[in-house]
Amino acid sequence: MSLNTYGHLFRVTTWGESHGPALGATVDGCPPGVPITEEMLQVWLNMRKPGQNKFTTQRREADAVEILSGTFEGVTTGTPIQLMIRNTDQRSKDYGEIAEKFRPGHADITYWQKYGIRDYRGGGRSSARETAARVAAGGVARAALAQLAPGLSITGYMVGMGERDIDRANFDWAQISQNPFWTPDAQAAEDWAIYLDGLRKAGSSVGALIEVTIKGCPPGLGAPIYGKLDTDLAAAMMSINAVKGVEIGEGMAAARLTGEANADEISMGENGPEFSSNHAGGILGGISTGQDIVVRFSVKPTSSILTPRGTITKSGEASEIVTKGRHDPCVGIRAVPVAEAMAAAVVLDHLLLDRGQTGGLRGPIGG
Amino acid sequence: MSLNTYGHLFRVTTWGESHGPALGATVDGCPPGVPITEEMLQVWLNMRKPGQNKFTTQRREADAVEILSGTFEGVTTGTPIQLMIRNTDQRSKDYGEIAEKFRPGHADITYWQKYGIRDYRGGGRSSARETAARVAAGGVARAALAQLAPGLSITGYMVGMGERDIDRANFDWAQISQNPFWTPDAQAAEDWAIYLDGLRKAGSSVGALIEVTIKGCPPGLGAPIYGKLDTDLAAAMMSINAVKGVEIGEGMAAARLTGEANADEISMGENGPEFSSNHAGGILGGISTGQDIVVRFSVKPTSSILTPRGTITKSGEASEIVTKGRHDPCVGIRAVPVAEAMAAAVVLDHLLLDRGQTGGLRGPIGG
Amino acid sequence: MSLNTYGHLFRVTTWGESHGPALGATVDGCPPGVPITEEMLQVWLNMRKPGQNKFTTQRREADAVEILSGTFEGVTTGTPIQLMIRNTDQRSKDYGEIAEKFRPGHADITYWQKYGIRDYRGGGRSSARETAARVAAGGVARAALAQLAPGLSITGYMVGMGERDIDRANFDWAQISQNPFWTPDAQAAEDWAIYLDGLRKAGSSVGALIEVTIKGCPPGLGAPIYGKLDTDLAAAMMSINAVKGVEIGEGMAAARLTGEANADEISMGENGPEFSSNHAGGILGGISTGQDIVVRFSVKPTSSILTPRGTITKSGEASEIVTKGRHDPCVGIRAVPVAEAMAAAVVLDHLLLDRGQTGGLRGPIGG
Amino acid sequence: MSLNTYGHLFRVTTWGESHGPALGATVDGCPPGVPITEEMLQVWLNMRKPGQNKFTTQRREADAVEILSGTFEGVTTGTPIQLMIRNTDQRSKDYGEIAEKFRPGHADITYWQKYGIRDYRGGGRSSARETAARVAAGGVARAALAQLAPGLSITGYMVGMGERDIDRANFDWAQISQNPFWTPDAQAAEDWAIYLDGLRKAGSSVGALIEVTIKGCPPGLGAPIYGKLDTDLAAAMMSINAVKGVEIGEGMAAARLTGEANADEISMGENGPEFSSNHAGGILGGISTGQDIVVRFSVKPTSSILTPRGTITKSGEASEIVTKGRHDPCVGIRAVPVAEAMAAAVVLDHLLLDRGQTGGLRGPIGG
Repeated sequence: MSLNTYGHLFRVTTWGESHGPALGATVDGCPPGVPITEEMLQVWLNMRKPGQNKFTTQRREADAVEILSGTFEGVTTGTPIQLMIRNTDQRSKDYGEIAEKFRPGHADITYWQKYGIRDYRGGGRSSARETAARVAAGGVARAALAQLAPGLSITGYMVGMGERDIDRANFDWAQISQNPFWTPDAQAAEDWAIYLDGLRKAGSSVGALIEVTIKGCPPGLGAPIYGKLDTDLAAAMMSINAVKGVEIGEGMAAARLTGEANADEISMGENGPEFSSNHAGGILGGISTGQDIVVRFSVKPTSSILTPRGTITKSGEASEIVTKGRHDPCVGIRAVPVAEAMAAAVVLDHLLLDRGQTGGLRGPIGG
Repeated sequence: MSLNTYGHLFRVTTWGESHGPALGATVDGCPPGVPITEEMLQVWLNMRKPGQNKFTTQRREADAVEILSGTFEGVTTGTPIQLMIRNTDQRSKDYGEIAEKFRPGHADITYWQKYGIRDYRGGGRSSARETAARVAAGGVARAALAQLAPGLSITGYMVGMGERDIDRANFDWAQISQNPFWTPDAQAAEDWAIYLDGLRKAGSSVGALIEVTIKGCPPGLGAPIYGKLDTDLAAAMMSINAVKGVEIGEGMAAARLTGEANADEISMGENGPEFSSNHAGGILGGISTGQDIVVRFSVKPTSSILTPRGTITKSGEASEIVTKGRHDPCVGIRAVPVAEAMAAAVVLDHLLLDRGQTGGLRGPIGG
Repeated sequence: MSLNTYGHLFRVTTWGESHGPALGATVDGCPPGVPITEEMLQVWLNMRKPGQNKFTTQRREADAVEILSGTFEGVTTGTPIQLMIRNTDQRSKDYGEIAEKFRPGHADITYWQKYGIRDYRGGGRSSARETAARVAAGGVARAALAQLAPGLSITGYMVGMGERDIDRANFDWAQISQNPFWTPDAQAAEDWAIYLDGLRKAGSSVGALIEVTIKGCPPGLGAPIYGKLDTDLAAAMMSINAVKGVEIGEGMAAARLTGEANADEISMGENGPEFSSNHAGGILGGISTGQDIVVRFSVKPTSSILTPRGTITKSGEASEIVTKGRHDPCVGIRAVPVAEAMAAAVVLDHLLLDRGQTGGLRGPIGG
Repeated sequence: MSLNTYGHLFRVTTWGESHGPALGATVDGCPPGVPITEEMLQVWLNMRKPGQNKFTTQRREADAVEILSGTFEGVTTGTPIQLMIRNTDQRSKDYGEIAEKFRPGHADITYWQKYGIRDYRGGGRSSARETAARVAAGGVARAALAQLAPGLSITGYMVGMGERDIDRANFDWAQISQNPFWTPDAQAAEDWAIYLDGLRKAGSSVGALIEVTIKGCPPGLGAPIYGKLDTDLAAAMMSINAVKGVEIGEGMAAARLTGEANADEISMGENGPEFSSNHAGGILGGISTGQDIVVRFSVKPTSSILTPRGTITKSGEASEIVTKGRHDPCVGIRAVPVAEAMAAAVVLDHLLLDRGQTGGLRGPIGG
């Protein structure tokens, strides 16, 4: 990962600001021969699109993606794919206050200090709008994975909002797409709807816990020591706006276990090695085991709230700020499709890396 | 981060296996004119060195570092620095069992599946011995930081072992070097000594929580979007053996907060902006604020335990394995100096990156 | 250099095909605070633009560049700059023949063999149109250099066309912009006009020799061993379509010299070291000396000619092909602004790299 | 290519100075399962080793390579391979003069200006001794190529010394290993022996022209636009000490040709496409055609000569310098095995890259 690019072989560079004419992603290194259309990518973008219900920002963006290069007759050619999304709902408004004051919890102060200049309109480059480009690029990665690892699926979902966690006993994959929170627990969804509506009306916000499960990942993906699959997944999730923690498998709770409790015992199944449990989250020594890969991360509450917060101006004077405008009371909701996209990019990248170095050979186990 | 190399401008490539003749780090991109001696680096290696007390593996390694290149008359020249550490205590023993069976929780099975070959002696490349090379490289980074950011300090410490957390009311920086656990809570140290001794004698192991605080980091380090300072710190920590979760500031707990609770309000102090709290962990939008940078991570319990665990052989037959040998009952202890080293490398790297792009200019705040 | 990206810190990724909707460059790592406008960049694009005289392809492209991101109020913010150029003159025509047959000297056959798919319209990604994106990105680099190295200038010019070289005795910098060949020898320009007109009418083409001189480059830029300034300049030039050879200073002729003849003796001038000659082309050990940096390269004749050439079809049948359409009789002419752009990107990149590693310190010579 | 590392997937980082304890190469990304022994690598090192005849420096170095990591039971494991070569013949001598004065044609002055410090003993990092590490790494690349592209061969040879070129009519592959100049023209070898002996006795030196031919390279290797196979080969050769120009196929002479003369017409042979000529040097659009890949480069004359040359001291005073010591009268001779090694690394790297992105699929031609 470096600056505005991620990936080793499947490399994505995103560009664009919240209130500029457009934003997008330059996708390099995609295998040739992958069918890609704007319609296919739009499906994923629509998952992330704002303004779909009262729990996400009311900014109205079509988030329509245009493929400007890299495909021919609907198929990737192996050359860079440019994905552009125009900004269409940049409300003209007075940015005077936000231009002069630093919003607590935002990147306003750090961008200013680092660069001596910042595009303060809607957060500029640090806006969550940047993640639309990731989702588009992730759509390309998914299409390539559909060819190269047909059984692989990537699903994100919310497992906690504020102090309220899902009940894992209620976990139902089919529920995830049935509620505005992408949660597998239908009961939690009902509860959260009331809870979040209250916060929204109060002009407040709340954090969230998101989990991504990758099923059907072949064993052997990942590269020791600094190119570990878990390292790259952690970096990918931590790079999403507002993420403050990342876990693989047991995650932080691994600190609490003894060696006996943590061991995922191995046995031989019909299709290869099986494990008695998955504390490891599908990765050992940085390399996939073939089990489900489980990544979890926290999203901090939206910093834009209606309660006044103390801050300073560029000239150093004490002040207060209330962030009006159109904001998500729980920005974690829209992080779900973003996390899926990042996971897809990382897994595809490692699949290509592995194919490059080993040719996909695998040390045989059993007959 | 890519494969066996980390860093953008200050780049470290580690090499070597647990039971080969030597291991080391190739450090490229270090600024010229930094005083470096083997004695200076040895101080840090001694912190990580095994066999220092009954709580770490009894393998006896001098971990003596040799500087083979990149310095002249005790000062870096700006060319690659080769740091070599010889392996001296590779006990000759029968590796028959470990060669044929996959130890649960180890990288045995994934290395085998990926590469079709593995150096099974002591874990080969996936051994924690690799981290000695990181500590040596981190020593170089510290020496450069001492020149470029004189007030900066990096301190790692243990804040939890198994279910037992420190009492933050007892936090005393001076205590950290006074106990075998690098913990700032003297009372916890006493408690843990008894607790861990019991686990050790039982051939068991336990996980740990480590925290690293970077004080005096200048504001403006870090690079949005995929080269964020927190992204790179998270990747650096996740790349350490046995780490399963990484947090910045509030970390996973950020999911639990409301926007009001999470806001770090800003005021003007004598030396620039000050913050009412540090939920952000010193980083906003991927860029340092000047506050303490706080990184926390979990280390899983050592997988090598005396209780038999079910596994399979390379030929796919069911079996059991007991990992004898010299192991750490809490490998988290030795992760403390490793994490400090990784943090030093990341911060130096970002300091050089920032200097490269911005020349170190800073947007002024106040008079 | 990797795939569609070049540069270490100042990184340019180009994208787009000859006959797609647009092409462009994603420029990452530019210093903040650099004034950039579309008008400024257009000046350079107009130098490369086709259809300006009878010696370049009659394709009519406005080559109008749009800045989609990375600037605010006309100044760079330090975030990625997206430069887009729409294709406007993609003549609709029958591509049947070119789709089935491989044009000798073109990348048709290799793209097909590598990717199993190719955008055959106008050469797709391998078209010289890609270089428009480089010129736009080079304009950004020039603007940054104007701030960071004010005395630095980069000038490309043609020194040979076919068998006809310029007479160095006629060298006049002021002539370069006065003729369609960017040549400093007014007499050669007259001669070449007649010569090339003959070739053009005959449907033939011819190669060229281009030279780029960088004046005012500070000493100390470049990085040994594999990041040498000459290595990166050579790679940058060799990456331009149709380039087959690159030279620094004496270049290939260095093979002919003795050590005595080749030595650039050093003396002390008023402003630092001076050299009796410049066989080295301004670079020693990969690092700039402060002398003029001199890079020379050859451009092969345009492969698209009216004389039928033997080839095969995708199904392997023998055939002939005549490449009609709008082509440059001497594509080297338009390589001049491209080479300047590449040189600007390389020098800026090394200036940032040097500032990152050394902080711009310089070992003093003399009082 | 970046600083002290080259390659994308097969990455080599060299380290070490002429007069330090050792130098070497860290090789990352090698495929697993490749047989490598010190003996195998030594064969290549012995080709480059100094002191083998009167035409190379009389420094006596065993250049014995040690494999410190990355192999197990004589086979690569896919982890980093550390190759170390001890310096054994660093004559203790008075470096007083060379420490204070800058030798013309050497990197003394630029290293000093850039870094403010330099290891002046024998050229330090800029010494040609660094190329021993490249040759060792190239040996690893050759071993991997022997597995992955069995019919591929890489042969370097000298085609010109000073003003004296070989007669291509005398070209005999079998002669190359039969003379101290690695030249395929036995008659030239005799002539050059007398010529170079004269220069050597006079304390002079001369430049050389080297060519490398890669036979049996599969079509489809290389990556457009900035990762072209010719771009990477050019960079690889230009990174060798004393190289001032690089050519592919026709090279600089391509400037002299018309389109008709330059066209390599295509026909269908028994084993796929064939070409009537090879002006392209085996590469079209940056991608291999399957023809012989032909790279040519110039090596400047050794700058260390016995004739006094004017220079300055660090304090800026005018002086003269005679470079005594043990030097190569034609350093181009030892560049031959170095160039072969670099070519091997580049081709392997592109083979892995291609396998990563395309899986080695090939667009079929003919039935």
